[in-house]
Amino acid sequence: MAVKGAELTAEKLLQATHELMLEHGGVEPSVSQLCERAGVQVAMVSYCFGGKTQLLQALLERAVEDVVAQLERLAAAEMPPDEKLRRHVAGVIRNFVRYPYAQRLSQTLAAGGPTIAGMGDRFARPLLDFHTELLRAGADAGVFRPVDPTLFFFSLVGACEFLFAGRSWLEDAAGERIDERLIERFSEHTTELVLRGISS
Amino acid sequence: MAVKGAELTAEKLLQATHELMLEHGGVEPSVSQLCERAGVQVAMVSYCFGGKTQLLQALLERAVEDVVAQLERLAAAEMPPDEKLRRHVAGVIRNFVRYPYAQRLSQTLAAGGPTIAGMGDRFARPLLDFHTELLRAGADAGVFRPVDPTLFFFSLVGACEFLFAGRSWLEDAAGERIDERLIERFSEHTTELVLRGISS
Repeated sequence: MAVKGAELTAEKLLQATHELMLEHGGVEPSVSQLCERAGVQVAMVSYCFGGKTQLLQALLERAVEDVVAQLERLAAAEMPPDEKLRRHVAGVIRNFVRYPYAQRLSQTLAAGGPTIAGMGDRFARPLLDFHTELLRAGADAGVFRPVDPTLFFFSLVGACEFLFAGRSWLEDAAGERIDERLIERFSEHTTELVLRGISS
Repeated sequence: MAVKGAELTAEKLLQATHELMLEHGGVEPSVSQLCERAGVQVAMVSYCFGGKTQLLQALLERAVEDVVAQLERLAAAEMPPDEKLRRHVAGVIRNFVRYPYAQRLSQTLAAGGPTIAGMGDRFARPLLDFHTELLRAGADAGVFRPVDPTLFFFSLVGACEFLFAGRSWLEDAAGERIDERLIERFSEHTTELVLRGISS
């Protein structure tokens, strides 16, 4: 198979896996399911990736690259620290909507052993650096009070993440569902909570 | 076996499972491991609980009962709403330290099917009711701004929870470890963030 053809097939497989993970609440599809959706033969998973685990790793890496690229663009943008934090919180929530399988998949792959690159360096480190720099800029500008960046990192990600991790409670205990309107409300709520929480 | 003896054995098995889950980062011990720790014969798991799944369910229920009882005591206590919220945040964090396996275990048991009682009614509902009442009391007293209780529930639990769910990132990306001093700092940090975040 020509390189171009293999790249196209790999992309089809990644897209099919992404779609099936979205549709099935983060549950990994079988090789035959994802090949059927991609419209390619089952041998292509081994041919393009070496195996299903490597395909899932590539899917997670694609998500991480997208998220880190967003973060770099926001870091480079010229805007007041509080406005930057506002956009960041909305972005973190949007990424949980876009890649609802990422958290669970990273845990599953991490449990698979040391052949899988740790998400600490690839994802958590750039995010923590972004928070550290943003908090410093906000303190310098007099808009944020002094806050520990590491503890802030966990509070912020957790405050955005748990709506998705605990979505069955949203339905069972509160009788609500995740839809666009709820995400918008949640985004406004979380942004307000965090901005007021660290304002000087 | 006399009823008293069976109860004592059941308690030994629960305590052994609790200890092993704490020691092994939430990973479920095998029946032989937990019986060895409890100092009882392996047939006792079936005799006392009907099986390992039911034993794990009983362990989770014990944790939930403890947490809900704490919540009821705090709800009944006479104190200003901001002080009550302060104690509540510290309590939520302390319970993640005390029962670090509860979140994962509830997901594992929920995946096992409908024979396992949902945590929505048993745990999330009382917690959401507590938040709703506390936010209302704080708004009436003029100390809290109006906040959606359902969204607040997810922000608050998430802000406390993610330090534990993402503890490998704490070590990999931030070079810190969960110990008593860190928990104390995190408790202060989260309390400040949440209280300032909703203050009027």
